Amino acid sequence: MADKRIATYDTTLRDGEQCEGITLSLEDKLAIVRRLDEFGIDIIEGGYPASNPKDVAFFREVAAMDLRHARIAAFGSTCRKGVAAADDEGLADLLASGAPVVTIVGKTWDAQVERALRTTLDENLRMIADSVAYLAAAGREVVFDAEHFFDGYKANAAYALACVGAAVEAGAVSVDLCETNGGALPFEVEDVVGAVRAAYPQARFGIHCHNDSGCAVANTLAAVRAGATQVQGTVNGIGERVGNADLLTVIADLELKMGLRAVGSHSLMQLTSLSQYVAELCNVSVSPHHPYSGASAFAHKGGLHASAIARFPEAYEHVNPAVVGNGARMLVSELAGKASLLQKAASLGFRLEEAEGGAQAVLDDIKAREARGFTYEVADGSLGLLLMRHLGIYRPSFTLESFRVIVDDREDTGALAKDALSEATVKIHVGDARFVATGESAGPVGALDNALRMAIVESYPQVAHMELTDYKVRLLDESQGTDAITRVTITATDGVDTWGTVGVSENVIEASWNALVDSLEYGLHRARVRAGK
Amino acid sequence: MADKRIATYDTTLRDGEQCEGITLSLEDKLAIVRRLDEFGIDIIEGGYPASNPKDVAFFREVAAMDLRHARIAAFGSTCRKGVAAADDEGLADLLASGAPVVTIVGKTWDAQVERALRTTLDENLRMIADSVAYLAAAGREVVFDAEHFFDGYKANAAYALACVGAAVEAGAVSVDLCETNGGALPFEVEDVVGAVRAAYPQARFGIHCHNDSGCAVANTLAAVRAGATQVQGTVNGIGERVGNADLLTVIADLELKMGLRAVGSHSLMQLTSLSQYVAELCNVSVSPHHPYSGASAFAHKGGLHASAIARFPEAYEHVNPAVVGNGARMLVSELAGKASLLQKAASLGFRLEEAEGGAQAVLDDIKAREARGFTYEVADGSLGLLLMRHLGIYRPSFTLESFRVIVDDREDTGALAKDALSEATVKIHVGDARFVATGESAGPVGALDNALRMAIVESYPQVAHMELTDYKVRLLDESQGTDAITRVTITATDGVDTWGTVGVSENVIEASWNALVDSLEYGLHRARVRAGK
Repeated sequence: MADKRIATYDTTLRDGEQCEGITLSLEDKLAIVRRLDEFGIDIIEGGYPASNPKDVAFFREVAAMDLRHARIAAFGSTCRKGVAAADDEGLADLLASGAPVVTIVGKTWDAQVERALRTTLDENLRMIADSVAYLAAAGREVVFDAEHFFDGYKANAAYALACVGAAVEAGAVSVDLCETNGGALPFEVEDVVGAVRAAYPQARFGIHCHNDSGCAVANTLAAVRAGATQVQGTVNGIGERVGNADLLTVIADLELKMGLRAVGSHSLMQLTSLSQYVAELCNVSVSPHHPYSGASAFAHKGGLHASAIARFPEAYEHVNPAVVGNGARMLVSELAGKASLLQKAASLGFRLEEAEGGAQAVLDDIKAREARGFTYEVADGSLGLLLMRHLGIYRPSFTLESFRVIVDDREDTGALAKDALSEATVKIHVGDARFVATGESAGPVGALDNALRMAIVESYPQVAHMELTDYKVRLLDESQGTDAITRVTITATDGVDTWGTVGVSENVIEASWNALVDSLEYGLHRARVRAGK
Repeated sequence: MADKRIATYDTTLRDGEQCEGITLSLEDKLAIVRRLDEFGIDIIEGGYPASNPKDVAFFREVAAMDLRHARIAAFGSTCRKGVAAADDEGLADLLASGAPVVTIVGKTWDAQVERALRTTLDENLRMIADSVAYLAAAGREVVFDAEHFFDGYKANAAYALACVGAAVEAGAVSVDLCETNGGALPFEVEDVVGAVRAAYPQARFGIHCHNDSGCAVANTLAAVRAGATQVQGTVNGIGERVGNADLLTVIADLELKMGLRAVGSHSLMQLTSLSQYVAELCNVSVSPHHPYSGASAFAHKGGLHASAIARFPEAYEHVNPAVVGNGARMLVSELAGKASLLQKAASLGFRLEEAEGGAQAVLDDIKAREARGFTYEVADGSLGLLLMRHLGIYRPSFTLESFRVIVDDREDTGALAKDALSEATVKIHVGDARFVATGESAGPVGALDNALRMAIVESYPQVAHMELTDYKVRLLDESQGTDAITRVTITATDGVDTWGTVGVSENVIEASWNALVDSLEYGLHRARVRAGK
């Protein structure tokens, strides 16, 4: 299998997004497409146009992106029973999306056909063949997702194989066998994929696994061992229930352990960064214990091994952390290195070479702050302000005289009363003018945000257009009790730009204040830049 | 393999506890032992006496516990090079622990012996044989952990096998092959375990895997397929780096997918509860997406499948969630059912049968509160107070007139100033007396806690002995912005009892206040109970 190439198919934006609690804006999705393309993913499944009208906008916008390598896929299902493919609205939506790849899911389990679809086994074969042929004739690269394939094969192997055959003969470029319930184990997957390959030796097969038995990655690798040449998954394994196969873990295992090529070693070094980036956009943390990309994935046990590691790293590290871009907790500072930081600064509109102390001073500052709990992965706003300070061009829009946040409760709360009301009073200076404003909200941070905006809107009317779209609180070390270091990240938009900021303190109010100030300051900066000032 | 019994070996308290950020008190460990024993785990590895003096107390206390089934293991290593087993202090510590099972780890990789241990291959064999024989002669059940076995076998199969042979011949009851670096894939593990079994067909083998390649569970199952009869792992897969094989996932897969017996179907129904319990004691959450025990592990996709599920559950669920005690988000209310709730109430000292509306009214109340964000898994204190209210026996120790929390900041914070100081003023009534107290701290919740204690200590001196040992904040829906529902859980102890409480609100201060009040009230209740009042 030396140098054999495995195609990678990412379904983070479709199957992954079905994960509870994950909502991606259109901008988030396009940003993820850009990063996946840079990483070298072959096919990016962008959405489900028939099911999700918002995805129509996605396919329109992504068609205008200049992608280096990746092909975009639209996801849908076989035509409805009793309807010709040419008359099916879902298929029409798929073609209308303009996506060069179209992936349709179809039944392959006889009981599903009869009890869920409530049609005949022959009609289901017709639906598969007609739909694939129709899309292929329209010039699309068709992927057939064989739903519940492993349960279907166990129940009625001949029928499941017939479904595969219908797709292959109708012109599917790849038949991706889906372990939809997540219940199979690796040896079962390997056996079944082997049998399918033996039945259709000229066809290309992919694999799509879920993690309900804790074996999604292993199942995916087992399928590759049995001859699958396309692997589906999501970044960080996000997905409903127990999630999908983690595509990044699969890629790392394929390349580093199985001698196969997926994205190549150069891209592999971006694995950790990609993992962290997508996680932040999804509003979740990468577990420190996540394979390859977790902050602790390569953290060595203290004491017993520490001296031994330096002498003999292979004894304790299954791979060199640098090959996946991991190895330290300080992501932006360590992984970025000077070249990446200069590039990042340029993308934000700053020429970092001109900073006093240059890029090194900035790197040192970032590293020190990350040690205190800051993260800049999705806090371009705070990063931009930091760069401006180093460049000597930061002019605060206002200075703080004082703020006070008050949370009052006036009767016996029991466990359910909602009498707590928060009030914040902010006193600031803009030039020689002084402003005092008081804001209210259910919670203290909302009150502070309202007060601050009220205080500066007269001087800076643009803040009226700025809206907070996301607010996250993380206690960085819960065992420290009530005064644990708290990190607050905020996302805001003014309808044109979107930016993130971060604040850190033992005091959640102060951490929030810092993130709020950065948010308004950076928003004002962006507004000035757009106005040519 | 019908009905074949696989032994389970839990190393949560030893290998698991090495996980960064996890600290278990002695009481936590004993509580976990109790639950693991009830679950049917065969061997519980309690600690590393030579390395960790605190573990001495553990072994003393656990010897006094009346365990139903489990055997306790002490962990250590082979004797030092050049030292007779009988003279080795580490082995002496293991015997002194009194644990009936002793597990010693030894080298099996030639390069490790020569470069890390810096001794000869023959001396390492001597160390293994002598140590095992010495412990076996002392009447202990000896488990030999073959460290880095898979790397060792790849490097020098003959030597690795010789190490195994030395342990087997010296009387090891089981040789547990450790995939210490976590880098192997399932097919490799299956091949190697098969080869070892072929070399020593009469010996018993176990397997101990790490999750660095995302395959720990699959590797463990592969080893069992190749003939291993003992599986090591930790609850929820906790452990350093990427963690250990998740013993509960392994057990569920062995029983539900491979037709083997580990703990039995009755115990298996306690899987979800055990997973959640250990997680809370470890101060981490079980990911909603955790196999089998996650809150979303069986949560169905809305829309497309909802109607189909009711007709045909096997189509969408790889196993019936009830068999692992999962199936709903409302853990205490749904899973408990009335019988368990009555049992729980009794364990807290309450006769729930006497409640107005009985257990059903309490269940309904718990369910409604859980829907609002409360959790009672580790909030016995709040649960106890809830029961007392239903029983009509709750007499608040004080009533709240008002509280006010103030967070001040007096100069331009930049991003790093620490000028924010929090102050809280609490006004309460105890009977006819009124108390006003002001507390200060870096953060607002610490200030509130200090103020409340100061206000009631004159009336209730016992609060001086109560100490907050843990404080956790969770935003339950971050996409709601700054006023997202926040859950605060607090753990407190008075040196005799330890209890947890919970508070929920859009306002973090109010949520904290509610949890703090419950904490003090419940602590006072426990103090009264102990004083016979």
